[in-house]
Amino acid sequence: MATPSVPALIDTIAELHVRVRERRPLVHCLTNFVTLNDVANVLLAFGALPVMASAIEEVAEMADQADALVLNLGTPSRERIEAMLVAGQAAQRHGIPVVVDPVGVGATSFRVAAAKRLLEEAHPAIVRGNAAEVARLAGRPAASRGVESVGEADVAQQTEAAQALARQRRLVVAATGARDIVTDGTQTLAVDNGHLLLRDITGAGDMATALVAALAAVEPDRLLAAAGALVLFGLAAERAAATAGGPGGFRIGLFDALYNLTVQEVVEGGKVVRI
Amino acid sequence: MATPSVPALIDTIAELHVRVRERRPLVHCLTNFVTLNDVANVLLAFGALPVMASAIEEVAEMADQADALVLNLGTPSRERIEAMLVAGQAAQRHGIPVVVDPVGVGATSFRVAAAKRLLEEAHPAIVRGNAAEVARLAGRPAASRGVESVGEADVAQQTEAAQALARQRRLVVAATGARDIVTDGTQTLAVDNGHLLLRDITGAGDMATALVAALAAVEPDRLLAAAGALVLFGLAAERAAATAGGPGGFRIGLFDALYNLTVQEVVEGGKVVRI
Amino acid sequence: MATPSVPALIDTIAELHVRVRERRPLVHCLTNFVTLNDVANVLLAFGALPVMASAIEEVAEMADQADALVLNLGTPSRERIEAMLVAGQAAQRHGIPVVVDPVGVGATSFRVAAAKRLLEEAHPAIVRGNAAEVARLAGRPAASRGVESVGEADVAQQTEAAQALARQRRLVVAATGARDIVTDGTQTLAVDNGHLLLRDITGAGDMATALVAALAAVEPDRLLAAAGALVLFGLAAERAAATAGGPGGFRIGLFDALYNLTVQEVVEGGKVVRI
Repeated sequence: MATPSVPALIDTIAELHVRVRERRPLVHCLTNFVTLNDVANVLLAFGALPVMASAIEEVAEMADQADALVLNLGTPSRERIEAMLVAGQAAQRHGIPVVVDPVGVGATSFRVAAAKRLLEEAHPAIVRGNAAEVARLAGRPAASRGVESVGEADVAQQTEAAQALARQRRLVVAATGARDIVTDGTQTLAVDNGHLLLRDITGAGDMATALVAALAAVEPDRLLAAAGALVLFGLAAERAAATAGGPGGFRIGLFDALYNLTVQEVVEGGKVVRI
Repeated sequence: MATPSVPALIDTIAELHVRVRERRPLVHCLTNFVTLNDVANVLLAFGALPVMASAIEEVAEMADQADALVLNLGTPSRERIEAMLVAGQAAQRHGIPVVVDPVGVGATSFRVAAAKRLLEEAHPAIVRGNAAEVARLAGRPAASRGVESVGEADVAQQTEAAQALARQRRLVVAATGARDIVTDGTQTLAVDNGHLLLRDITGAGDMATALVAALAAVEPDRLLAAAGALVLFGLAAERAAATAGGPGGFRIGLFDALYNLTVQEVVEGGKVVRI
Repeated sequence: MATPSVPALIDTIAELHVRVRERRPLVHCLTNFVTLNDVANVLLAFGALPVMASAIEEVAEMADQADALVLNLGTPSRERIEAMLVAGQAAQRHGIPVVVDPVGVGATSFRVAAAKRLLEEAHPAIVRGNAAEVARLAGRPAASRGVESVGEADVAQQTEAAQALARQRRLVVAATGARDIVTDGTQTLAVDNGHLLLRDITGAGDMATALVAALAAVEPDRLLAAAGALVLFGLAAERAAATAGGPGGFRIGLFDALYNLTVQEVVEGGKVVRI
């Protein structure tokens, strides 16, 4: 499916959000413990339905009812990774998109091994990570501390790493940063919505990943779904930042801004270009 | 203990909240990971004290100090269910009320089996669930997606299922929805407080269950305790919704509204009827 | 390193916060599940970087990259305690400060045994607990319910217990309450910043402990680091309480107040004395 041209792109992204609100896709998330609550609430504010089951005994049965699956590597444990692989296989049988978020890959050898297994065995349609995580998965040098990407973003390097990973793994890669790069290895989009306050709260990446999955649940063009989610989340961040007194109010305002986001605001404020 | 008539009902419910604030009952919660923080905070805002210990090594000793016990089936794991049964047995020996929340029962066979064990072995005094969960436990047909109850609420069916479950298990059932139904199988109360925004946040049900336990800790009439908690929580939701800009601000406002709720507001705004 | 005199104390504490914002120390937290999100967000609002990895497979590798380590005993499990000990040993090899928060010690024998192991095997530089927790660790009588310290604070007893524990274990003890006592067994500081609303939210102690670790990461004088964190956190609480409508808004306002706290506000509002 061809991704439309730029004015049409924004219109389509606005329409995708309407589609989420109408269909209320069920997004099954195996996600980290730090931001479990934020991820569930951001999906509800966006118009989707979250389900957060993570026990190996029930993840396949839950994924069978879902419209998309999120596998998030934050705060990993051996048990949850096994459950992720089981859920990923159920999602593949069931034909729903799997979105992997390789939180902190490279920080420890445990995460490197786990991310490798998720990429190979869970058959993700989309990987959403920060620039350092995407660079590491693509075999490029990366600067990070703990689970944070650090250093000046070099957009050219970020784009090259995202494209390389997309081609290596035959999936869509969304590498977020000051500029978000979304690519399937052939076509590449850049999203310029967002706000610096997203770096001052925990869970911004986790929430973005969940919204990518919610759009992928209603739109088979993965490139468009991933870029669209980053536009919508970035726009909500801009609106929340406009009235926030700091990161606390900003985080709460994000839910309200997403909930209230209108088609007109998306069409007027969305910033996505083909590069 | 007979439940008082309607004007007296509201007065008694207002008085129960005062009693919670004076006695500060310790409510031990084995609850899901998604809303652990919200449940602890809502208990504090209500005037109770939360304790969230869930390791099998310490739950019995903790339940022995508590005034009520919550067993919540969200994000279940084999270990936590075993711990719930141990805590439930301690609560029974100790003579404190157990409140079960069968989150997402029916979504997976793992939860069906776990709910069955909780009902049989943990001796709950009260079950608090949404209409679909209560219907499933009563052996009635139910519509749900993931852990959400869906479809038009048919209050007559909801009431019948709640009454059937109450009689089958000899306990009080609180089936929440557009109208909340609370019944011991003989007497039935309906609560009409609440707000639609409760459906747009995660954890509304979990929080309501915890408040039911807090009132049951200070009031031996389980029917009154369960209905009272739903009146108070629903009133707080109405007040929070009045100034909220969306689900983010609403969730935070809920804590503030509960914290500030006055006897006069309860007496004037509480909506509970015998049906 | 000698702790400076009082006017200099406040100036130094204000400067320490600037140092955190400049260096962005990575604080590795093995903390309880109830307040994981709040602890990560409070570290970001303070200017530090959080990492919350808790699996035994990766904690040593993560602690090797960190600038301080928090071991928090809330919602303990056997697995997490083993992981804490492994992380503590890595921190000791690596030469970074370990801060232990003995949440609810005394509530169960499981926590008593775990706290003993943490004190003996994880080599903490600082223990931060409420008055009851510190009293229990020092072998003094203590009043608590669940994980809450109760009863009128007797500051003389609180001080004696903190000093005894500091001498027994050769570390710095921060015993928080209406008045916070910080001591190395020889020198003792008292901090009078804070607000009663801190008792109406969950996680106030957990957040304070994380900030103690963030300051200890940039300041080798442990006494000063611990007292400084309590001054800064207490001041943020005072500012947040000034505009909050209840505990919900207060908790969110805490993040904003910490984020916006200025050197001038610290110098003018900080209340710390040598006793």
